[in-house]
Amino acid sequence: MKNVEHIGIAVRDLEAAEKLFSTLFNSQPYKKETIASESVETSFFKINQTKIELLKATGAESAIAKFIEKKGEGFHHVAFEVDDILSEMGRLKNEGFTLLNEFPKQGADNKLVCFIHPKGTNGVLIELCQEIKKPDS
Amino acid sequence: MKNVEHIGIAVRDLEAAEKLFSTLFNSQPYKKETIASESVETSFFKINQTKIELLKATGAESAIAKFIEKKGEGFHHVAFEVDDILSEMGRLKNEGFTLLNEFPKQGADNKLVCFIHPKGTNGVLIELCQEIKKPDS
Repeated sequence: MKNVEHIGIAVRDLEAAEKLFSTLFNSQPYKKETIASESVETSFFKINQTKIELLKATGAESAIAKFIEKKGEGFHHVAFEVDDILSEMGRLKNEGFTLLNEFPKQGADNKLVCFIHPKGTNGVLIELCQEIKKPDS
Repeated sequence: MKNVEHIGIAVRDLEAAEKLFSTLFNSQPYKKETIASESVETSFFKINQTKIELLKATGAESAIAKFIEKKGEGFHHVAFEVDDILSEMGRLKNEGFTLLNEFPKQGADNKLVCFIHPKGTNGVLIELCQEIKKPDS
């Protein structure tokens, strides 16, 4: 794992949270993105090499809605950048970690992602992510 | 704020968590430290510019013991490195954030630290930290 790529924070009201974190960081979010397949709306800040991703559910079926209902707002996940997501998924599966998706899936911010079940990692939801490289034009 | 300096994770069993995160990261913790004034024992991993700090309570009065009792193991705080902690504390206090300590206090890893109340930051406990510079010898 080569970098803490981002930290995901579950929020109820994205606009209010954007305003608050803009004040906290003394900087503005640099992009917003909706991931329809996950029913989430996101907003990204950047602090040096790590992004802070605010996550708001767009429907009751969203994992973020369920998380907030159960635990309230706050830390949702931490994402580690890897060079080869398939190889890391294989290594961690062999080590006994429970992967939440068997194959890498497309996440926000042009990434292939895989989540590891927090029951096996002291309650911390961990994401592995790898940048999707565009083919040479 | 210039860097995500570390992410703190509250754990019940430090040795078991060290073993698990060593496997996850495929690397070993690079140091352990006990902070008697906070009743915590810590173990640090390093992923590029960000540290992962495992925190175990050494007594029932520890904030980590109370956190785990209320919320279970998992994400405890995120620490942002700042150049001038007094100036940032002043700025954030003026902006309406609630500081948990009025003056910077000594934390783990040779840092001056200040915590911001999570009720004002979407449930996220935030630490500001600044390296304690040794006087020129």
